[in-house]
Amino acid sequence: MRTPSPDPTPDQAHIGVIGAGQLGQMLALSGISLGLSFTFLDPSAQAPAGRLGRHIQAEYDDELALEQLAVECDAITLEFENVPVSAVASIARHNQIHPGERPLSIAQDRVHEKRFFESLGIPVAKYHAIDSFEDLKSAVADLGYPCILKTRRLGYDGKGQVVVRHSDDLEPAWASIRGNPSILEQMIPFTREVSIISVRSTRGECAFYPVSENQHRSGILHRTEIHMDDPAQERAEEYARHVLDGLDYVGVLAIEFFEHQGRLVANEMAPRVHNSGHWSQNGAVTSQFENHLRAILGWPLGSTACTGHSIMINLVGIIPPRAPILALPGVHLHDYGKEPRTGRKLGHINIVADTKESCRKYATLIEQMIG
Amino acid sequence: MRTPSPDPTPDQAHIGVIGAGQLGQMLALSGISLGLSFTFLDPSAQAPAGRLGRHIQAEYDDELALEQLAVECDAITLEFENVPVSAVASIARHNQIHPGERPLSIAQDRVHEKRFFESLGIPVAKYHAIDSFEDLKSAVADLGYPCILKTRRLGYDGKGQVVVRHSDDLEPAWASIRGNPSILEQMIPFTREVSIISVRSTRGECAFYPVSENQHRSGILHRTEIHMDDPAQERAEEYARHVLDGLDYVGVLAIEFFEHQGRLVANEMAPRVHNSGHWSQNGAVTSQFENHLRAILGWPLGSTACTGHSIMINLVGIIPPRAPILALPGVHLHDYGKEPRTGRKLGHINIVADTKESCRKYATLIEQMIG
Repeated sequence: MRTPSPDPTPDQAHIGVIGAGQLGQMLALSGISLGLSFTFLDPSAQAPAGRLGRHIQAEYDDELALEQLAVECDAITLEFENVPVSAVASIARHNQIHPGERPLSIAQDRVHEKRFFESLGIPVAKYHAIDSFEDLKSAVADLGYPCILKTRRLGYDGKGQVVVRHSDDLEPAWASIRGNPSILEQMIPFTREVSIISVRSTRGECAFYPVSENQHRSGILHRTEIHMDDPAQERAEEYARHVLDGLDYVGVLAIEFFEHQGRLVANEMAPRVHNSGHWSQNGAVTSQFENHLRAILGWPLGSTACTGHSIMINLVGIIPPRAPILALPGVHLHDYGKEPRTGRKLGHINIVADTKESCRKYATLIEQMIG
Repeated sequence: MRTPSPDPTPDQAHIGVIGAGQLGQMLALSGISLGLSFTFLDPSAQAPAGRLGRHIQAEYDDELALEQLAVECDAITLEFENVPVSAVASIARHNQIHPGERPLSIAQDRVHEKRFFESLGIPVAKYHAIDSFEDLKSAVADLGYPCILKTRRLGYDGKGQVVVRHSDDLEPAWASIRGNPSILEQMIPFTREVSIISVRSTRGECAFYPVSENQHRSGILHRTEIHMDDPAQERAEEYARHVLDGLDYVGVLAIEFFEHQGRLVANEMAPRVHNSGHWSQNGAVTSQFENHLRAILGWPLGSTACTGHSIMINLVGIIPPRAPILALPGVHLHDYGKEPRTGRKLGHINIVADTKESCRKYATLIEQMIG
């Protein structure tokens, strides 16, 4: 058992991170500037962040590895929400970990997540928990078509989801879900999808980034645009504050909403730094990565204000040649250093410009380059 | 001998850096985002940048280590100007290294540097090369008091310099220089010291950052302020362009000037990223570190425009507690992760604000905190 130090978060703290993907890498790039050092726990030898600190190569349920991480670090966090809750509990016996078990267990189960949003008065799409084909048929009878069947657990980037538009779709949909505990949700004919990146520190200080408008391609985030003075800002902040305070949450948390007839309907939340907040690396005074670290260390949060008009474009499957991209002013490349693979997020491009028009012009040019 | 690849600077290049101090660390933090990886050559086991890539722990004249660096990297650069010229020559036999032998050998000798500036029509203070006490006496007779005696080689942060104000100072000054080849310079009653960070790529593209106004304490840079539309900008750019083109230079190069009666008088140059350019990490569209990497890789240079009013303050000998610093808006801490030691540069703080007034207000608060 670690003896709590008199200063639980020393200025040159050593941070433990469960997961060593690109989010871990960007946390480290941000934190090393602040004088922090890092240890990552990740089973993959090729994990991008592994080279930016110590890499404990072990499975997420390896008790010895978890204890090692807990004991050698001053504060522990995670970069993806599917870390086993038991791993978080195991670390919590030795040291502080943020976010903790409760937000994680809620975010890992779409039914718990919906119920949690409802408990806070945050609108969600109508839904039913599905444990059998009978459940599915009666849920469809209630919700009508179209609706969407999702596994309760372990879905991401559109995986584990299937749209049900017609009674003929029911059997294939159920088969594709392989009988896993699922949720059937009414499909909302939304006008746009927005998300908010919020952050709350160990001292209870909260900050909210400007809402982003997100476009997906094949279930993967493709493009995020930030609108200063977005009409959805006030309501999104209100909901995010309910979630942060309701969970006594610490760190960055993202919530995705559908906008439907001027209302925000919560889709899901991610208890971590989030792809729709990557624009903040170049387009905000303080990035989501730095603010996540400030939050878990109890440091004052940094300003979330925009420094210009921002668009982020994901690089999926391929990183285009650099020279024509870097020739555009205000364009910043972030390459995660991963092996290219179809459908894999390899990097992103942040565009910051003085005006919405020039920002969109460069975004269009970049979309042409990436095809 | 390395076989030149058809694409000499692949997009995910491996960069070799001679030296692994804070400048190397900041180059790496910037380059890893761009998809680059790094190998550092540095004799110190504690060198800060060593943890951000492969660290070849060897002396700078270790021929085997130099060859290893040359052969395993796609492009090689350096983070301090006192790398032995023979080391650069040794690498140049195997691979490209920027900056190369000529700028380095000029920058390493204050007399060569002065002559080089003169050859380009860039004003310098009156000076004499000093090889003996007799030389010193006759030089003083020509230049008058006060003047400043500096070793020709290996001076930095005010080390190897002594002011001569009176004939009684001559013998102690000569003794303090220990008979090393030196230069006696007229002391210019300058109104301010400014520097310009310039960059030139392998393709000959040049870019210039806004001139910074620098204040020193005990010979060490203390504070840098950026004035947009500084009256010295045009002339400083003109001189920097002469230097860049005159050397067929590649990479970032800094030139320090004294401003005297509205004229710029060149003091010295640094063929590397420079402390007076650190503000660009948070206050410019593209940092000097990213532009140095873009330059040596032949990529288009990024915009050097300011994103606000910027002041940088060095943290020498001590890093103050973070919380009160980070509570100020637009304030960015850069901690090099080094062991504290009197007179050692441990980090810096960049302040970016919309107005000169608020930027200076925060700078004053920070100066009070660091004492």
